[in-house]
Amino acid sequence: MNNFERVMERVNEKTLIVGVIGLGYVGLPLAVTFAKKGVSVIGFEKSESRAAQVNRAENYIGDVKDEDLTEVIGNKTLKASTNLSKIKECDAVFICVPTPLDRFKKPDMSYIEGSCTDIGKNMSSGTLISLESTTYPTTTEELMKPILEKESGLKEGEDFWMCYSPERVDPGNLSFKTANTPKVLGAIGKEALDVSMAIYGLAIENLHPVSSPRAAEMVKILENTYRLVNISLINELALLAGKMDINIWEVIEAAATKPFGFQAFYPGPGIGGHCIPLDPFYLEYIAKGMNFDLSMIDSAGRINNIMPHRMMSKVAFALNRHEKPIKGSKILFMGVAYKPNIDDSRESPALLLMEEVARKGGVVSYHDPYIPEVKDDHGNSYTGVELTDEVISSADCVVFTTNHSVFDVDYIVDKAKLVVDTRNAVKRVHIEDAKVFKL
Amino acid sequence: MNNFERVMERVNEKTLIVGVIGLGYVGLPLAVTFAKKGVSVIGFEKSESRAAQVNRAENYIGDVKDEDLTEVIGNKTLKASTNLSKIKECDAVFICVPTPLDRFKKPDMSYIEGSCTDIGKNMSSGTLISLESTTYPTTTEELMKPILEKESGLKEGEDFWMCYSPERVDPGNLSFKTANTPKVLGAIGKEALDVSMAIYGLAIENLHPVSSPRAAEMVKILENTYRLVNISLINELALLAGKMDINIWEVIEAAATKPFGFQAFYPGPGIGGHCIPLDPFYLEYIAKGMNFDLSMIDSAGRINNIMPHRMMSKVAFALNRHEKPIKGSKILFMGVAYKPNIDDSRESPALLLMEEVARKGGVVSYHDPYIPEVKDDHGNSYTGVELTDEVISSADCVVFTTNHSVFDVDYIVDKAKLVVDTRNAVKRVHIEDAKVFKL
Repeated sequence: MNNFERVMERVNEKTLIVGVIGLGYVGLPLAVTFAKKGVSVIGFEKSESRAAQVNRAENYIGDVKDEDLTEVIGNKTLKASTNLSKIKECDAVFICVPTPLDRFKKPDMSYIEGSCTDIGKNMSSGTLISLESTTYPTTTEELMKPILEKESGLKEGEDFWMCYSPERVDPGNLSFKTANTPKVLGAIGKEALDVSMAIYGLAIENLHPVSSPRAAEMVKILENTYRLVNISLINELALLAGKMDINIWEVIEAAATKPFGFQAFYPGPGIGGHCIPLDPFYLEYIAKGMNFDLSMIDSAGRINNIMPHRMMSKVAFALNRHEKPIKGSKILFMGVAYKPNIDDSRESPALLLMEEVARKGGVVSYHDPYIPEVKDDHGNSYTGVELTDEVISSADCVVFTTNHSVFDVDYIVDKAKLVVDTRNAVKRVHIEDAKVFKL
Repeated sequence: MNNFERVMERVNEKTLIVGVIGLGYVGLPLAVTFAKKGVSVIGFEKSESRAAQVNRAENYIGDVKDEDLTEVIGNKTLKASTNLSKIKECDAVFICVPTPLDRFKKPDMSYIEGSCTDIGKNMSSGTLISLESTTYPTTTEELMKPILEKESGLKEGEDFWMCYSPERVDPGNLSFKTANTPKVLGAIGKEALDVSMAIYGLAIENLHPVSSPRAAEMVKILENTYRLVNISLINELALLAGKMDINIWEVIEAAATKPFGFQAFYPGPGIGGHCIPLDPFYLEYIAKGMNFDLSMIDSAGRINNIMPHRMMSKVAFALNRHEKPIKGSKILFMGVAYKPNIDDSRESPALLLMEEVARKGGVVSYHDPYIPEVKDDHGNSYTGVELTDEVISSADCVVFTTNHSVFDVDYIVDKAKLVVDTRNAVKRVHIEDAKVFKL
């Protein structure tokens, strides 16, 4: 029996073992999804404490149900481990590691490279390696494959298979989770595609194959570039609308009545999260290497960069109306999550805005029911405050930076001296009245 | 009885008369829609021959049904006229005139200004004036109102009402026509809004009021800017994908499987039609006057401008593979309409591409079943050719510029020596084979 026949038999008998590298917001849901379907999963973690946490069924990812984790840990279909030599037991290894940008917006590929080294050193012949992390086109074929071949001494296509299948996790999305979100998949060669489709098909309802890993890599970048560009566009139009005494929120709501050819995006103090602000710059990186300028991404990036600064000016103008400077004024920020109703402050524009205001001498505090404490990019720590009449009314300005549904907006506006609303949290005013300034 | 009471009574009794200025692709469907509901409509046209054509029920607009025009002309609810003094009989006048850009991309407001002068000189007290043409925010309040007041000697708000309600005509759209497309509407003041809603409500199923004309003006610009920016983005990514041996069409199809947060746009040889390539530059014009740069629109415009040139290079590279130059080669263009299955070549990128190829010495011809002859921007006339085996096989290169459904693509590719496909008309090839070059 050759490698291909053996893995297909193990798929059919559901006796295969799947490894997941990285148990974060992508890897843990993926591991639990496979385990729920009865597939044995080993979750690999660098961190001893996190592996132990998973093995105690202590859930730390909002999109994973507590009872699901409890079930698959209880019946031992999912085990977390820090022991990389167990990779040799796996028929498939899914890489779900971060792909951040460094401070110069250059892709940091060290997590992917490190994973490939670990896998290469430990893998058996006949394994499928799939990357799920967002990255620039050509990563699978030109960065990963040489590392895997070198470290393992095995040959791609003969001894192991490779594919790229981007995660589409949307934190907090109540309708679409790992299992029911259609999954794009591009493999190197027909055999690799067959193996990938068979293995992912055990847990994912809907697979969409494309002709190559680089096509699949481009798919994910296109999805997120679309979002970056459209959010940047609406941010730019919002700034213009403010100058023209036009309520951009009203405009978007009206445009959204068009039943074809329009999708609504909303402005805000900047773009946050782990994908939208980063992924397009992966593409820009590879394009620059080909002497190709991506002017739309470039413009979008510039608008995004300037938004926290523009919002700081908005705070300054609002305070100015009350004849106060930023320096020495108490500014209370409502929400530091990058989007509503989640506990994630990664790349949150609220933090950038807080940092800018603090640097100008503002006395900064925040309230976020989901995030008790945060650090900004420069390492300044903040502890959230309780929301009391006194906290609100003693602030010189209250700034809505996240529109968490739990905020009692009318109450807050009522108690506040002055409000800057970057999220259309306050519905009852047009653009600005004496008390409320809107983006 | 005051003006307001009188017009409301005439709405309730359906005895009012509606005037429509301009019987083009917006005005004629609007006139017919009101007339079909039993409202008397006078359609004003500068051109004697077009007015006569309408009065003979000779239909020239694809989105108007022949039988509807025959019916409303037959029962005399719609009459076309060149006699502007009849404006005084109208309770409402809808302005549906062109708002082009001049060759320096500056808005040409002469049609709107001319209409306002005509209306001002002829209108009665108690009339609603509504602009439907796409334009920059502030047009209704700051450009039109002074002209109307000066020419009529009447006062806006007291003697007449104004609103802006943008047309959303999508030529060839089979589901959404004038009556069932939700209509945004912004009036000056509460009384004007009530009158506008009452009158438009006679013929339009779904009205969405906003707080001012300038908000409504911004809505239409947002809708079309969204399209311009997204088409430009995908064009830019298509050019990069071509360099990376990635099939952009496959990528878009795969991204479109994402069930949230994505809307597919498709690349092409440039952006055509009467709206998308023009409207955003209206906004750019007014923004420049406020010292505000719209970098997203600017980038999008630049990509759009360069696409025909890039497609000309594609043709040159394809011919080069056959060791031929453009000069003296026979190039056959398939389709000059700006989108499939319509007979409209306004701002069509096919024409720009034909012009570029002709300027380089290419022997240009075209076939378009919907458009027997065209003129390019520089006044060169072309007459379409019949599609025969001989015509196809004698061309050195066949270029798909519009993907009309009626094209028998397999047959054409079969007979052709060489194909450049800017529209993904040819489905069977990946990016390029010996014969077919794709965008």
